[in-house]
Order: sequence, then C-alpha cells, then structure tokens
Amino acid sequence: MNPEKLKIAVLGGTGNIGEGMVLRLALQNLMTEGVKNEIIIGSRSRETAEEAAKSALSELENCGFDTSRMTIKGKTNFEAAQEAEIMVLTIHFDHVLPLLDEIREVIEDKIIVSPVVPMVKEGGLFIYKPPAEGSAALAIQKRVPASTKIVAAFHNIPAGKLKDVVKCKAVHHALVCSDDAEAKKLVMELTRNMGCLKPLDGGPLKQANTMESLTPLLINLAKLNGLKDLGINFS
Amino acid sequence: MNPEKLKIAVLGGTGNIGEGMVLRLALQNLMTEGVKNEIIIGSRSRETAEEAAKSALSELENCGFDTSRMTIKGKTNFEAAQEAEIMVLTIHFDHVLPLLDEIREVIEDKIIVSPVVPMVKEGGLFIYKPPAEGSAALAIQKRVPASTKIVAAFHNIPAGKLKDVVKCKAVHHALVCSDDAEAKKLVMELTRNMGCLKPLDGGPLKQANTMESLTPLLINLAKLNGLKDLGINFS
Repeated sequence: MNPEKLKIAVLGGTGNIGEGMVLRLALQNLMTEGVKNEIIIGSRSRETAEEAAKSALSELENCGFDTSRMTIKGKTNFEAAQEAEIMVLTIHFDHVLPLLDEIREVIEDKIIVSPVVPMVKEGGLFIYKPPAEGSAALAIQKRVPASTKIVAAFHNIPAGKLKDVVKCKAVHHALVCSDDAEAKKLVMELTRNMGCLKPLDGGPLKQANTMESLTPLLINLAKLNGLKDLGINFS
Repeated sequence: MNPEKLKIAVLGGTGNIGEGMVLRLALQNLMTEGVKNEIIIGSRSRETAEEAAKSALSELENCGFDTSRMTIKGKTNFEAAQEAEIMVLTIHFDHVLPLLDEIREVIEDKIIVSPVVPMVKEGGLFIYKPPAEGSAALAIQKRVPASTKIVAAFHNIPAGKLKDVVKCKAVHHALVCSDDAEAKKLVMELTRNMGCLKPLDGGPLKQANTMESLTPLLINLAKLNGLKDLGINFS
C-alpha cells in the first residue's frame, strides 16, 4: 500500500471522533506534499453518510481550505469497507463486533485501525473495562480473517481538538501499536501526515490495553481538574 | 498536617526513584518560600540509609544548593516510619506488603504515598501486572490500619529527570489519587513545592490502576522510539 494514495474508510464517520478523523484525514492532501488520499465515510445509512461528507467538505471550505484537492464521499459501512484499503473504526465498542461480522467478507488483507475504547461510567468517572481478550483491539483481531491487519491508534486524541481544524495548533502524541510492522508503519505515516499529531510506536497489539485505558484517564483528568479536550505529550 | 513543616520518610530511599525523591523533597525548602520539611531516608540497614543521606546532601551541595536549609537523615525503615507523618514507598511491589506488616504499629493516622508499580517484563517490553485487588495502591490500602491514608502518586515521573536536579528544567504532570481528600490535597501541595512537577487530581484510589499502568507504557515508549526518561504532559 502506498501511504500517499489510499482509500481510507471511516466507519462510524458520522460520530464525534469520526467527524474529526474525517476532517484530518482529508486535510492530509493539503498538509503533506504528494498525498492524494480518498476518504469514505461509512454509516448504517448511505444518506447520513452522504450528508456527513457534504457537511465535512463545506466545513473545510468555510475554514478556507482548498477542497478541490480533497475527496470525501459517503457510503454504507459495507460499501465503504469494500472500497477502502484501510478502515478506521470510530464506533462504540458494543457495535464493533457485529459490524465486523457484517463486513467480514470484504476485509481480507486490509488494515483495520481501532481507536475503540470499552469503558463504563461509575460514580461520575470513567473506568476502562476491557473484554475477556484483554483489549478491544485483541477482541477485534479475534473476530476478523487472519489476513486482516489490526492497528490500534488514536485513543488518546481529544475529539474537540481533532475537529477544530482551524484553531488546533497543538501537536499531541498518538500511540500506534500492531503486530504487523508494515501496517503499523503505514498508520504512523498517515498520522504524521495529518499535521496535528506526532506518532509514537506503541509496540505489539498486546500493548493496546494500556493505550485504550488512556481515554478514560484523559476524560477523568479533564473533569477533575477543570480542563477540557486533553491530549498527551511525552517528553 | 502542615504541608510546610512535615517529617517525610522515603522508605527504600536508597533505590533509583527513592534517590531522586529524596533530593526533590529536600529541595522544597529552597524552591518554595516557607517550607521547612525534614526528610528521613529509610532503608533495611541504618548504615546504608545514613550513607545515602550524606551522599544526597553532598550532591545537593556540589550542585550549589544551600544545604544548611535542608534536613536529610538516615534511619531504618521502622524508625523512619515511626518518626514521619508521611511516608513515600519507593520500594519494589514484592517487598511492599511485608514492609507494611513490619511498620504497621507506627502508621496509624499517617499518610502513605505509593508510587509502586507491579509489572513484569515479557518479550523485551514491560506489562502492568496488578494484584487481585486491582492495583498496588488498593493492595496497600487493604494491608494497613483503617486510619492510614493511602495516596497514589509519582508513578509517571522519570527517575533520571527526578535525580538530575541541576539540568532538569522540564515540568511534568504528576497524577495524584486518593479516597482521602485532605491527604490528596497535601500530597498535591508537596508535589507542587518540589518545583519540577505539576500535580493533577487523579480522582479516587480506585483509579490508581490507570496511573500505575503508565510506568510500563513510558518505559516501553522510550525503548521502542529511541527516547529516554519520558514524562507526561497533558494539554
């Protein structure tokens, strides 16, 4: 796969993190020389996805970006998965496994990127609650064909900053882990090309639980300390 | 307890994190107006602890600090716990519970600060391995008298930067969690007074597992990405 000419599906791309992901992935074509990636928003309904694609493009246009150099389109999740080489699952953990069954036949050899975080709210704070496999990423890996490569990434990126394409100058670290070295390298490059994130190698997929648990930590720290949209930097 | 006039024991203060903790706690008296805390290094052997106290003072003196305004002394762990109002356990998890049994009779109503992280090495990387209680902090809480207050803190502070009192200009976040609001506030203030750390409220002690799991994450990220002594900043 060529990281500069990819078809990238954002399944569940009409949700909170999905919206920001779509904008940032589309912006790669302007942020980094040579990149010509196509973004496909996947949703349960094609109409919702098409609406989301239009609204993403008009938001980028309103912010002054040259949308003639971007492609964002809307499809059903199945069609999006069928067309794309790489899929980002911006979906609630409860809905991920059924969706994987639905798209199973069209994801052989492809890359699935999981920012999925299983968590529950208790006493006003969030608690990481991984499935028996140890993490959402490992549960996903168990559910897909052996040739599908799983990459866990983007758990610790604040949705608000991801969506705020004009104001966000902050550069946060994004942790990426996978058992497939090539897929990991590709997602790290995509991440770098997004302009607002610095990728760090997080190791094998077994390490995904620690990355997933950063999401409830960030939400809790923000709430407890009167902060907002927290990201992480390591130094 | 008055955060400006405390007797603070660092049990296991002759180890890697312990050394840095002793230096930084002693430096509070210079870093923050009005602070006159005494530091007691605890070790299995009084001689080792006394040696460590001398060596900490001479290191601080060599770095140009006015050591006449600091107190660092060495004692056995039991004597240190007996004398102190607050104890930092810079000890390997395997040795923590036996030590608590040893000092149990002298820690009623006192504060125990746990930066303890149970972890194992697998395939070159570290994996967080909490005890059945859910975290080292919760295991510690179970082992001490009901009046002893447990505060989990300092897990994500790089030992190298903590020890490097001259060069370290970096300010990292330090997460602090506890079920006792007053004890948490006190430790957050101590942390702020150390000069190189910004405390963040991490919530109740139940959240300690997420904080403890940051240590193997930081060590792994450093190793995988050719970095060193990583700390965290949230923004």
